[in-house]
Amino acid sequence: MATTAATEPLEELRARLAPLSDLRGLLELLQYDQETVMPPAGAAARAEHMATLSGLLHDGWADPRIGELLEEVGGTDLEGDDAALVRVVAKETDKARRVPAELVRELAIASSRGQEAWAKAREHDDFAAFQPYLQHNVELKREYAACFDAAEPYDALLDDYEPGMLTDEVRAVFGPLREELPALVAAAAERSPGMLTGHFPIDGQRRAVDLVLKRVGFTDEAWRLDTSTHPFSASPGQGDSRITTRFAEDSLESLLSSLHEFGHGLYEAQVDPALARSPLGRGVSMSVHESQSRLWEIFVGMSVPFWRGVWPQLSEAMGGPPNGLDPEGFVATLASVQPSLIRVDADPVSYPLHIVLRFELELALMAGDLAVDDLPGAWRDGMRDLLGIDVPDDRLGVLQDIHWSFGAFGYFPTYALGTLLAAQIWDVAVGELPDLDAQLEAGDLAPLRDWLRERIHRHGRRLEVRDLIRQATGRELDAGPYLAYARARAGSE
Amino acid sequence: MATTAATEPLEELRARLAPLSDLRGLLELLQYDQETVMPPAGAAARAEHMATLSGLLHDGWADPRIGELLEEVGGTDLEGDDAALVRVVAKETDKARRVPAELVRELAIASSRGQEAWAKAREHDDFAAFQPYLQHNVELKREYAACFDAAEPYDALLDDYEPGMLTDEVRAVFGPLREELPALVAAAAERSPGMLTGHFPIDGQRRAVDLVLKRVGFTDEAWRLDTSTHPFSASPGQGDSRITTRFAEDSLESLLSSLHEFGHGLYEAQVDPALARSPLGRGVSMSVHESQSRLWEIFVGMSVPFWRGVWPQLSEAMGGPPNGLDPEGFVATLASVQPSLIRVDADPVSYPLHIVLRFELELALMAGDLAVDDLPGAWRDGMRDLLGIDVPDDRLGVLQDIHWSFGAFGYFPTYALGTLLAAQIWDVAVGELPDLDAQLEAGDLAPLRDWLRERIHRHGRRLEVRDLIRQATGRELDAGPYLAYARARAGSE
Repeated sequence: MATTAATEPLEELRARLAPLSDLRGLLELLQYDQETVMPPAGAAARAEHMATLSGLLHDGWADPRIGELLEEVGGTDLEGDDAALVRVVAKETDKARRVPAELVRELAIASSRGQEAWAKAREHDDFAAFQPYLQHNVELKREYAACFDAAEPYDALLDDYEPGMLTDEVRAVFGPLREELPALVAAAAERSPGMLTGHFPIDGQRRAVDLVLKRVGFTDEAWRLDTSTHPFSASPGQGDSRITTRFAEDSLESLLSSLHEFGHGLYEAQVDPALARSPLGRGVSMSVHESQSRLWEIFVGMSVPFWRGVWPQLSEAMGGPPNGLDPEGFVATLASVQPSLIRVDADPVSYPLHIVLRFELELALMAGDLAVDDLPGAWRDGMRDLLGIDVPDDRLGVLQDIHWSFGAFGYFPTYALGTLLAAQIWDVAVGELPDLDAQLEAGDLAPLRDWLRERIHRHGRRLEVRDLIRQATGRELDAGPYLAYARARAGSE
Repeated sequence: MATTAATEPLEELRARLAPLSDLRGLLELLQYDQETVMPPAGAAARAEHMATLSGLLHDGWADPRIGELLEEVGGTDLEGDDAALVRVVAKETDKARRVPAELVRELAIASSRGQEAWAKAREHDDFAAFQPYLQHNVELKREYAACFDAAEPYDALLDDYEPGMLTDEVRAVFGPLREELPALVAAAAERSPGMLTGHFPIDGQRRAVDLVLKRVGFTDEAWRLDTSTHPFSASPGQGDSRITTRFAEDSLESLLSSLHEFGHGLYEAQVDPALARSPLGRGVSMSVHESQSRLWEIFVGMSVPFWRGVWPQLSEAMGGPPNGLDPEGFVATLASVQPSLIRVDADPVSYPLHIVLRFELELALMAGDLAVDDLPGAWRDGMRDLLGIDVPDDRLGVLQDIHWSFGAFGYFPTYALGTLLAAQIWDVAVGELPDLDAQLEAGDLAPLRDWLRERIHRHGRRLEVRDLIRQATGRELDAGPYLAYARARAGSE
């Protein structure tokens, strides 16, 4: 009887939540449109649009009726998706009700304006022009963090991207990386074949990207590829997967970047359709999301069999094999380990050190131990300390990433966590898909996609991150597989 | 004192209305995205997104607080923009409160589904497949019209596109057109040099469209051009003007279509910036909008001086002058008068007859005098009666236009009214800009843009349509200038 009685409030709850999922999808769409299609002069109006949607989303989540419905549902014994829904909704509505609507609006506007200021500042290598916007974002985010009862402010920020994870847990995971990776990178750099450089006409790259994406599962029916300054993905709604890449004539970054964003898009596309328009119907956390993008970028995109299978077509698309290399030589340069200035171009072994730097700087900013004015200097010191290289200017330093410009503090750690998790998941996939190498070579990626759907994607937010990792890989998040991979890549094993 | 007391409710009113303007802009953006960027499989989710935004927009307008604020403001003596705002808002909120939220949602979903069904039905020339969707749209729109105290249902529908105009007024304007135009068209067709046909490679057309648009005022900073099945324009927000065109190798429709959509975009772009994010900050009616697009399409785009000035560059862009013509010959074919099947390709003289047909069919559908099943036959009869031609299939007949598929009954008349108004406005412009021909030839379109801004655009919805026309042209809407133009074009004067 209790279960029957609970049906009605659950139905009303679902009906109230569906439009909120729509608004969330629309915010992704606006971001995508802004970076790919919108004329530059539309930026100010777009900031208002984003603020209006963010405000409606916040109001929807903070609506007291949601709390009432949760109470009505609460006494009953829920199972499965219903229990997961109530758990997720209780947390989200509590979060929304703690943050004043005015602060939400200020954050949205500061985010749009910050991005615009950052783009110009980066172009002119002018940190001072960006400083007041960044300062404002830092202040707003500290104000935001203060809305929560967190042991330290950073816990509240991290939770928005990595629900349930504490700053101390990140510290514990990053400790061994900070300890072992600098020496691995230094040793590997001496043996490095050098990164892939050369002249790669963009038309050929476009054909190559198209070829590679179609090979892994991109279709014109449900996907869209555009170019943007900073590659990213958006999934506004079911059947609508969008990714961007960028092309430069002196690099083949477009290939790996496309595979990376494909991994993000595939995760959202393979969530159980029954969860559409529900808060459960999307990726569970940014680290799990990043594990999916990194899996396709690093473990598919740096696999010799994968490139061997597509080599004749790729060579034709590009008017000859890149730099005259064979697949083995190509992968060796793709995965070459050496310290470098730009995070998104970093190899998978030095990459986590870029994140450790940002994590430590964010902690110091949020704790008030580091002034925004002192950030460029602290950045240079950190790069010298962790990667042993000098930063020639702020464009190649503190201004390289967009994240802080829109107030995304607490986001960076999930990139390194995702890289670790990708290695852990790949280890299990390799064990359970004995023909994987042959499938990679044949361009038969359906078994891998299906395995990922079954183990990770379909669950959406049904499971908490910890439980998802445990059921997908049989154990907790563990840096072991990544460190083994890093040592092998660095040539020290 | 009373004026001071009114400031606060007016401020609150403006603050409540700004997000509604944002939602309206976002609906335009979604439409644009759907037609130009969205992967096809995203259609179902997009229908939900549109329904959610339409619902929020409706709820916002129907909010009783708006009525309260209007009452608080009401007793005071308002002038200028404040008075106009109250007038416009009183009407909109009354409209919103008459229509149940559930019907709004049904209309939005039927609209998205209808468009999808129409696109497929048109592709396969299968009216029967579209019939149930159209039937549903007709029923919903009759239900919608019944929410208002209108003398006839069509009045309520027309008012959404042409505020303040009655069906009887349209009948009165269309009467003389129905009477005079068929004979003009028949006579002109005998003398016609034939429409422009030939082989025009798309790359060259793209360069030509770019050239022409830049010449009239399109900038990459504030405008965006894409392609879509059906050309249209969208103005999601200030500084963000988007237009589409379409290319076919056997036609130069892309040139006139681009100018047409530019005219729509320019109207929105030149509304007084002080009216941004207010219900006053957009075009006042669809007929005035269409007058702006038709002015650029017909009176600039079929002007010999305009093409003479751009002819050398255009010929270079297209690898030679189109069909080896000179500007005079080019314009003669562009403006060639002859009966034809497709409305959007029709010359300006036969065009209104296409509208008269649709208007009469819509009236009959809404009055219940015509069954949806009988529509294709009624279409054929009408085409024979008005234009003297036989319709070979429904793709070239009743399925050619998208409008009914999204429930836009009452929209078509504004196309013909806009064409008439364009002629009336152009007459005045020619009189007040004595150097206009020289400016058209020199590609100096700023004086014309400024004149249009001053007389029409900047007012947004400050003035009612009737008052706007009177102050822009010195008289009421008058078919005289159009009929004079049509007679001249048809060669009978």
